[in-house]
Amino acid sequence: MAAAIDFYFDFSSPYGYFAATRINQLAARYAREVKWHPILPGVVFKATGSAPLTQVPVKGDYALHDFARSARFHGIPYRRPDVLPISTQAAARAVLWARAQQGEQKAIDFAMQIYSAYFVDGINISEPSHLPEIGRRAGIDTTDLIEGINSLPIKNQLKEDVEQAMARGVFGSPFVIADGESFWGFDRFDQLEALLRDGKI
Amino acid sequence: MAAAIDFYFDFSSPYGYFAATRINQLAARYAREVKWHPILPGVVFKATGSAPLTQVPVKGDYALHDFARSARFHGIPYRRPDVLPISTQAAARAVLWARAQQGEQKAIDFAMQIYSAYFVDGINISEPSHLPEIGRRAGIDTTDLIEGINSLPIKNQLKEDVEQAMARGVFGSPFVIADGESFWGFDRFDQLEALLRDGKI
Repeated sequence: MAAAIDFYFDFSSPYGYFAATRINQLAARYAREVKWHPILPGVVFKATGSAPLTQVPVKGDYALHDFARSARFHGIPYRRPDVLPISTQAAARAVLWARAQQGEQKAIDFAMQIYSAYFVDGINISEPSHLPEIGRRAGIDTTDLIEGINSLPIKNQLKEDVEQAMARGVFGSPFVIADGESFWGFDRFDQLEALLRDGKI
Repeated sequence: MAAAIDFYFDFSSPYGYFAATRINQLAARYAREVKWHPILPGVVFKATGSAPLTQVPVKGDYALHDFARSARFHGIPYRRPDVLPISTQAAARAVLWARAQQGEQKAIDFAMQIYSAYFVDGINISEPSHLPEIGRRAGIDTTDLIEGINSLPIKNQLKEDVEQAMARGVFGSPFVIADGESFWGFDRFDQLEALLRDGKI
């Protein structure tokens, strides 16, 4: 079996959410697995000297319009959250905790439920108290979740994961690395698919 | 006949070049005409507080890779210019001059030849002395071109055009406005086509 595809995403990124709804089906069509890596945008923004799209003058309004239009175009449920972007540290840690406790598939299910909670149900996922209920939607026993996301090992692992992502050149969300090729943006999924299909691009 | 589509582009933008190779055929499939508007990136960067993609840390290397890969993916001839970005004021003025002298179609032909000269033949189009030869490739009598691009009316017109573009919310290249909908990036041409086909998006 060919190597897994690395999927980097931030929970406050609408394009990351759109990508999350599609990446596993896309990979499965070419018998590939996907490793999900929650990242933190703040760290990346600092490295590239950029800012959240919605906070850039002029571009911000366009971005909000494009989020909704792109969701419609691709047939993805989407409702603009009241606050965007938000802190995604707790959510990212929750996914790492779920992986450590219950394996990759549960971590992915949890991540998808977090994305839906934020971009469909309007739940403020920066608030840790919402996370146990969201985890239960993914069929996860969340008794120890809050303790887990506040634990040093999980905190340190997220730091390491983000540093590793940046060392690999990840600078935005979504970001996919497959067979050494990097793809930034949901709008590069056509080129990602060409690589998976043809073995080159 | 439905209203023309407005196509904004900067001559040092590879994605603008890719879009230029496709916009007229796309519009023609839906019996639409295209008005070409050369813009200057510097003015826009100042408004949005952004910088040329190739000068952003980390993103810059990715961008150079993505230019070449996107060209291959879409089957568009492309050779990375030695210097990127460059000043595009002379080239933009040349297109306005050609339109004033010889009409919209000649202006478009000239713009395409300028793009090819830069992104295929590696000619430094920021140097006005190259422009007459490029104009002749588009079948344009360029005897008065240099005088034209240095004339006050053409200089003022470019300033006005860029101001008008910014007033309409244009902040990058390529940028298309059709039926009141704005599309930033060659990678939104699928959504632009959906609008032209369905009358809504």
